[in-house]
Amino acid sequence: MGEGKIERFQKDRERLNQIVMKYGGSSIKRFFSIDSQVYGEGALPVKTKELLGLVSSLVLRCDDCVKYHIIRCHQEGLKDDELDEALAIALVVGGSITIPHLRRALEAWDELKAAE
Amino acid sequence: MGEGKIERFQKDRERLNQIVMKYGGSSIKRFFSIDSQVYGEGALPVKTKELLGLVSSLVLRCDDCVKYHIIRCHQEGLKDDELDEALAIALVVGGSITIPHLRRALEAWDELKAAE
Amino acid sequence: MGEGKIERFQKDRERLNQIVMKYGGSSIKRFFSIDSQVYGEGALPVKTKELLGLVSSLVLRCDDCVKYHIIRCHQEGLKDDELDEALAIALVVGGSITIPHLRRALEAWDELKAAE
Amino acid sequence: MGEGKIERFQKDRERLNQIVMKYGGSSIKRFFSIDSQVYGEGALPVKTKELLGLVSSLVLRCDDCVKYHIIRCHQEGLKDDELDEALAIALVVGGSITIPHLRRALEAWDELKAAE
Amino acid sequence: MGEGKIERFQKDRERLNQIVMKYGGSSIKRFFSIDSQVYGEGALPVKTKELLGLVSSLVLRCDDCVKYHIIRCHQEGLKDDELDEALAIALVVGGSITIPHLRRALEAWDELKAAE
Amino acid sequence: MGEGKIERFQKDRERLNQIVMKYGGSSIKRFFSIDSQVYGEGALPVKTKELLGLVSSLVLRCDDCVKYHIIRCHQEGLKDDELDEALAIALVVGGSITIPHLRRALEAWDELKAAE
Repeated sequence: MGEGKIERFQKDRERLNQIVMKYGGSSIKRFFSIDSQVYGEGALPVKTKELLGLVSSLVLRCDDCVKYHIIRCHQEGLKDDELDEALAIALVVGGSITIPHLRRALEAWDELKAAE
Repeated sequence: MGEGKIERFQKDRERLNQIVMKYGGSSIKRFFSIDSQVYGEGALPVKTKELLGLVSSLVLRCDDCVKYHIIRCHQEGLKDDELDEALAIALVVGGSITIPHLRRALEAWDELKAAE
Repeated sequence: MGEGKIERFQKDRERLNQIVMKYGGSSIKRFFSIDSQVYGEGALPVKTKELLGLVSSLVLRCDDCVKYHIIRCHQEGLKDDELDEALAIALVVGGSITIPHLRRALEAWDELKAAE
Repeated sequence: MGEGKIERFQKDRERLNQIVMKYGGSSIKRFFSIDSQVYGEGALPVKTKELLGLVSSLVLRCDDCVKYHIIRCHQEGLKDDELDEALAIALVVGGSITIPHLRRALEAWDELKAAE
Repeated sequence: MGEGKIERFQKDRERLNQIVMKYGGSSIKRFFSIDSQVYGEGALPVKTKELLGLVSSLVLRCDDCVKYHIIRCHQEGLKDDELDEALAIALVVGGSITIPHLRRALEAWDELKAAE
Repeated sequence: MGEGKIERFQKDRERLNQIVMKYGGSSIKRFFSIDSQVYGEGALPVKTKELLGLVSSLVLRCDDCVKYHIIRCHQEGLKDDELDEALAIALVVGGSITIPHLRRALEAWDELKAAE
C-alpha cells in the first residue's frame, strides 16, 4: 500500500466516518464507541485482538475491514510467520471463497513491508 | 451521488439487466418479475417495503442493492431520522462488518440530499 | 407455539441471558443495551422496527432471532397480510435457502394465532 | 435415514409447506413455483441440477436443504464417487465451517444406502 | 471481457498468487493444491465441476470466483442454455441479493461470446 | 456440558467423522489433514489459534464449531476474562445475529467450569 496509499485509505475512512456521524443518532454512535473499546488492551494483548479482528473479517469477506486490521497488525509488530498462521486458519475455516480477500490482504501487507 | 451519478448508476443497471434478459430463460425472467412485485403497494406501504429491502440488503452486505434501495427510499420521502433508525437496526443485527456498507449508504444519501 | 411453548422459549432465553451476564464484561453488556434501544419507539413505529428485525433475521437465517421477532410482531398487532408481504420480501431477497426458516416462522405464527 | 426417517422428514416438510400455503400470498406461491421449475429436466440433466442444489445448499450451510437434495440425488441414481467429488468441491469452496453439515449429509447418505 | 480483459484478469490473479506464495507457509500451499485437485477430471466431468464451482461462488457472492469459473466454463464449451439453467438455480437458491453478481457474470459471458 | 455431555459430543463427532472417512476420497481426507495442521503449535501459541478458531466460528455462526473450540480453549487453560474479551469482538464484528450462538457458547463454558 505504501505510506501514500495508507494515508489515502485512512483519509477516505475518516471522511466517510464524518458522514456517518452527521446522520447517525445515539445508537449508531454508541455502536462505534463499543467497536473501539473491544480492541483495547485488556486480559488479551492488543496484537491478539487485532488478529481476532483480522481473521473474523477475512472469513466474513470484508475487504475494508481486512485492510484496516492488516494495517493495525503491522503497527502492532506482527511478524510474517504469525500472519501466515493466522491467515491459514481463516483460509481453512472460510474456504477458497476467501482467497480473493486473502490475496488483497497479503498485497497490502507486502506494500507495508516494502514501505518499512 | 448527485443526479448525474444516479443516472449513471441506473443506466449501468439497465444495460446489465438487458444482458440478463438476453441470456435469461423463463425462470430468471419470472424471478425478476416477483422481485418487482414484492415492493409494490399492499397491506404494507411502499416506504416500509423499501426499508425492509434496504435493511436486508445491508445485513447481507450488497452495495448495489443498498444503493438501489437508498435511492428508492429517497424517492418515497424517507426522513433523515427514519433512515438513521433503520440503519441502526441493520448495524446492530449485522455487526461492525456492515460498517463499510453503512458508510457508502450514507455517502449516497448525503449526495441525494445535496442534490435536492 | 401456544402460550406454554412461548413461555418455555422465553424462559430458556432468560436463563441463557443470565449466563451471558455472568461472564460478559462491559462491552457485551453495552452491546445488549443498544440491542434493546434500537427497537424502541422513535421516528419509526415499533411495529415497523420489529418487521425490520424479523426480515433481517430471516435473510441471515437465525431461527431464534426469527422466533423472537415473530412473537414481538404478534404482540404489536401485526396482521396476516402484513406478515405475508414482509416474508415475501425476505424470501425474494434471501432465496430458497431461507425457506426452512420461513416454514418455522409461519409455524410459530400459526401457533400464536391459534392461541389468541 | 432409512425409509421411516425419510418419510417423517418428508411428512414434516409437507405439513409445514401447508402452513406456508395457508399464509403465503401470490408472491410466495410464485416463488415456490419457480423453485420447482429450476430443477426440472432441460439442457442440463436433472442429476446435475440436483448436484448444483446440493453443493449450493452445503456452502450456504442449510441442513434441511442439504438433506432434501441428498434424497433427490439418491433417487436420481448418483454414485458414491460422484457424491464424494461434489462434496469435496463444496468443502474446499465453503471451508471447514461446512464440515458439520458435510457430516450430516453423509450420515443421511449412509442411511439411504443401507436402506437400498 | 474480451481477450485483453481476460489476460489482464489472469495476469493480476497470477501476480497476487505470487504474493500469496511469498508469504504463505505449508498450510496455505497445501490448501491451494487441493483447490486445484477438486476440479480435475474424475467420476464427474470437468464441465460439471466448473458448474458446481460457478454456482457455489455465485450463491456466496464472490465476483472474482464467479469470473474465474465463467472463464473456465467457457473453455469447457458450456452452452448458453446450460449456463442459463445453472444461473437460475443459483438465483433461486441465493435470492435477489445475488443479482448484481449474476449481472456481472453474464456481462463477462457476453464478452467471452463476442470474442469467440 | 459436564464430562458426560462432552464425551457424548465427542463420540458423536467421532462416529460422524468415520462416516466422512468411509465416503470421502483423497481431497476430503487432505482437507481434514490441513484442518488439524493449522491449529498446531507454531509462531502463534495454540491458545491464540483456538481463539481464532472460536471467534471465526462464532461470526460464521456454526454451533458445532463453536462448541468444539470452546472445549479446546478450556483445555488450553483460557481464563474467563480472556474468553469474555474474545467473545466481545465476535459479537461486535458479527452483530446481534450471533447472540443465540454466544448464549450457547457460554452455556457450554459454564458447564465446563462447573465440571472442573
